[in-house]
Amino acid sequence: MVFNQQNIISIRDFNKEDIEYILRVAEKMEPIARSQESSDILSGKLLGMLFYEPSTRTRLSFEAAMKRLGGSTVGFAEAGTSSATKGENFTDTVRVVGEYTDVLVLRHNMEGTARLAAEIVDVPVINAGDGAGQHPTQTLLDLYTMKRILGRIKHLHVALVGDLKYGRTVHSLAYALAMFGTKMSFVSPPGLRMPREIMDDLNNTGVTVHETSDIKDVLSHVDVLYVTRIQKERFPDPQEYLKIKGAYTIDSELLKDSEAIVMHPLPRVDEIAHDVDNTPYGKYFQQAFYGVPVRMAILKSLIK
Amino acid sequence: MVFNQQNIISIRDFNKEDIEYILRVAEKMEPIARSQESSDILSGKLLGMLFYEPSTRTRLSFEAAMKRLGGSTVGFAEAGTSSATKGENFTDTVRVVGEYTDVLVLRHNMEGTARLAAEIVDVPVINAGDGAGQHPTQTLLDLYTMKRILGRIKHLHVALVGDLKYGRTVHSLAYALAMFGTKMSFVSPPGLRMPREIMDDLNNTGVTVHETSDIKDVLSHVDVLYVTRIQKERFPDPQEYLKIKGAYTIDSELLKDSEAIVMHPLPRVDEIAHDVDNTPYGKYFQQAFYGVPVRMAILKSLIK
Amino acid sequence: MVFNQQNIISIRDFNKEDIEYILRVAEKMEPIARSQESSDILSGKLLGMLFYEPSTRTRLSFEAAMKRLGGSTVGFAEAGTSSATKGENFTDTVRVVGEYTDVLVLRHNMEGTARLAAEIVDVPVINAGDGAGQHPTQTLLDLYTMKRILGRIKHLHVALVGDLKYGRTVHSLAYALAMFGTKMSFVSPPGLRMPREIMDDLNNTGVTVHETSDIKDVLSHVDVLYVTRIQKERFPDPQEYLKIKGAYTIDSELLKDSEAIVMHPLPRVDEIAHDVDNTPYGKYFQQAFYGVPVRMAILKSLIK
Repeated sequence: MVFNQQNIISIRDFNKEDIEYILRVAEKMEPIARSQESSDILSGKLLGMLFYEPSTRTRLSFEAAMKRLGGSTVGFAEAGTSSATKGENFTDTVRVVGEYTDVLVLRHNMEGTARLAAEIVDVPVINAGDGAGQHPTQTLLDLYTMKRILGRIKHLHVALVGDLKYGRTVHSLAYALAMFGTKMSFVSPPGLRMPREIMDDLNNTGVTVHETSDIKDVLSHVDVLYVTRIQKERFPDPQEYLKIKGAYTIDSELLKDSEAIVMHPLPRVDEIAHDVDNTPYGKYFQQAFYGVPVRMAILKSLIK
Repeated sequence: MVFNQQNIISIRDFNKEDIEYILRVAEKMEPIARSQESSDILSGKLLGMLFYEPSTRTRLSFEAAMKRLGGSTVGFAEAGTSSATKGENFTDTVRVVGEYTDVLVLRHNMEGTARLAAEIVDVPVINAGDGAGQHPTQTLLDLYTMKRILGRIKHLHVALVGDLKYGRTVHSLAYALAMFGTKMSFVSPPGLRMPREIMDDLNNTGVTVHETSDIKDVLSHVDVLYVTRIQKERFPDPQEYLKIKGAYTIDSELLKDSEAIVMHPLPRVDEIAHDVDNTPYGKYFQQAFYGVPVRMAILKSLIK
Repeated sequence: MVFNQQNIISIRDFNKEDIEYILRVAEKMEPIARSQESSDILSGKLLGMLFYEPSTRTRLSFEAAMKRLGGSTVGFAEAGTSSATKGENFTDTVRVVGEYTDVLVLRHNMEGTARLAAEIVDVPVINAGDGAGQHPTQTLLDLYTMKRILGRIKHLHVALVGDLKYGRTVHSLAYALAMFGTKMSFVSPPGLRMPREIMDDLNNTGVTVHETSDIKDVLSHVDVLYVTRIQKERFPDPQEYLKIKGAYTIDSELLKDSEAIVMHPLPRVDEIAHDVDNTPYGKYFQQAFYGVPVRMAILKSLIK
């Protein structure tokens, strides 16, 4: 098996073999991520962290992944502690930090910045979220979570729930699941449906996709409820928002006739009630943990 | 000897044996803290640093302790660089970072947050200060400083000086010294005396406590002057504050008939004059250093 | 060969032998900085980073240098995440962090702070820029860049271009080049010429210095164009600024009759056009990289 990517920019650059390669390596990394085994395979290596936007999970899990493998990190956690405040342009900063390190992880609020960075530096670039663009390592850990908890990706039925119009996470995940031929249901308010363009792409791959605005339509059929936040700002009328929000809130009561696991990219606000956290349904903290072995696999695969 | 704590939340959870255990391990750690010996006993281990409030000494000495033992750290140094700015709730952040790491250190401006965190994560939690609450690792390093410089804790006479009403440091230290049967004097302005509740608790343990508002009453008798800051905000009348402040400022002139060492949790403002810094009285920088071996002992004792 | 410095405060504390020592050690460090070899010569050692002002290059290259050699860092990247916000005075912070670590790197906006710090702590102090004062590690990497790319320092002709009145980088570099007897040309607008005092010092060393306001005077003669930014704030009349700026902008067209390499301490704004970046002239990113082996050499030379 081989891994064909020099950078991790978009899940759409991946083929199924690339994804399976990462998931397989991640499984070997798990005992190290759990601190049951120790490793120094990235000893002496440096990861550059360029976080122009704050982040807890993504930043800390990349750092944890690098450090558990014996490597180190340098960088900044927000634009304010970098020379960006002195007016330095983005490409110069990226080139300089690329000179210091073996691989870069970049988060930025502007779509396209990760691909631009990859074009100008000699080291591999990992996109950790570029605005409305891509967040491919999130998709990889989402797939890994399904595989580890449910044993498979292909013969699953996955419901994507919430804001499917603006959510970059669900767009990337839908494309990736389509590669595996996974059955999908899309559950959203009428105004926040999956964009037509993506629906066309998915239909062209031959996967079955079912759309609904009522979560009760899918509850008893699906293996996974993948929930995302619905943002108030999307609704001109606050009353409309409150009505919608209630209809898409997942709680224990709603789940009692379901066998689905509940996933969420986090942070959540109130779209999943806290009474789900410690039930067998709630897998979002385990999902967050799986970010570490998946990012270990990515770092190991990119660093020569 | 055994150590009974799973977490470090409040010094009041400790018994004398727990404290003596940490002090004994800290002594073995000193050559490593001084960089005279090197160690990798925490190699591959990860400390999560959740600092919702800025801090220099506490944060840096925990990081120094972890790194001198071969371990690594991940986290944030202020709420601004975490997802707290995206409205993520405290408990979700703590659970997620707990998934990535082997132990958490938490500083927060709200009392009770450390104990709450310990209830929801699987890894040990260390309270690095929770608002008006506790700061137990400060108390342990205070005790260690006395033991290392004066050779004992029990047969000392310790004066706590300054704001004894609001200072969490002196509250915790008083309880801990009472466990050792140490003689105490409390020196404070009348309006900033040790709270009645704590006085009752101390009297119940049978230790001797003497209260005064005049520092000259204790100068020639005590082994330790433990000084804390008196904050201007505590006084409605600025003139009253200035008068009080002068009476509680420690300088070389005042100390010349004393044999006490001067300790301070830092940061100081002007309650200890700089002319004390390089005299044999001034031990507060050495005290700060002792934070490193004490925190090494704590980390080693908690991480499995 | 020996290295005589206990601290790195100003390039003017160095003699030629000190500089050559660092440049020679840096050359041995290059394969480690490029991650072609690994090293743990600073394993267990701690570098304290006190950055009261934000910085990308200097901070990250020091961290990279320390970590590539197996060491660790603790500190802060801006005053906001330290106790400076609680009003703690500078000297107390420096003394405390000096207690935790083996060497300090300090950046501050006030001239003289690095030398003050060196007087009060027991560990070596490295000045990473103190306001209008010095930035000696920048000068060392500038010299290293010339030596590595052009093979020598002495028999070069170096043009310093731009704001020579206020730029601390060019002041330090001019003094250092004078130690080597390097021929220099100073190219600046009439109002931003090298200060008279420095000109006198340089003339006393016997080196040849030529001043001009027209960059075309030097283009065909020099080996190095060392470019610095001209800041708008220096000009009362914005029209005057725009005219000057245009005359001191380096682009490919201007360089086509030159054989000089172009260096810049970065960050640049628009004084070097992006069309120079990937030509054989543009060496400023390579120069940034050389910051890592040079700082490795400094750290190794100071840490016992």
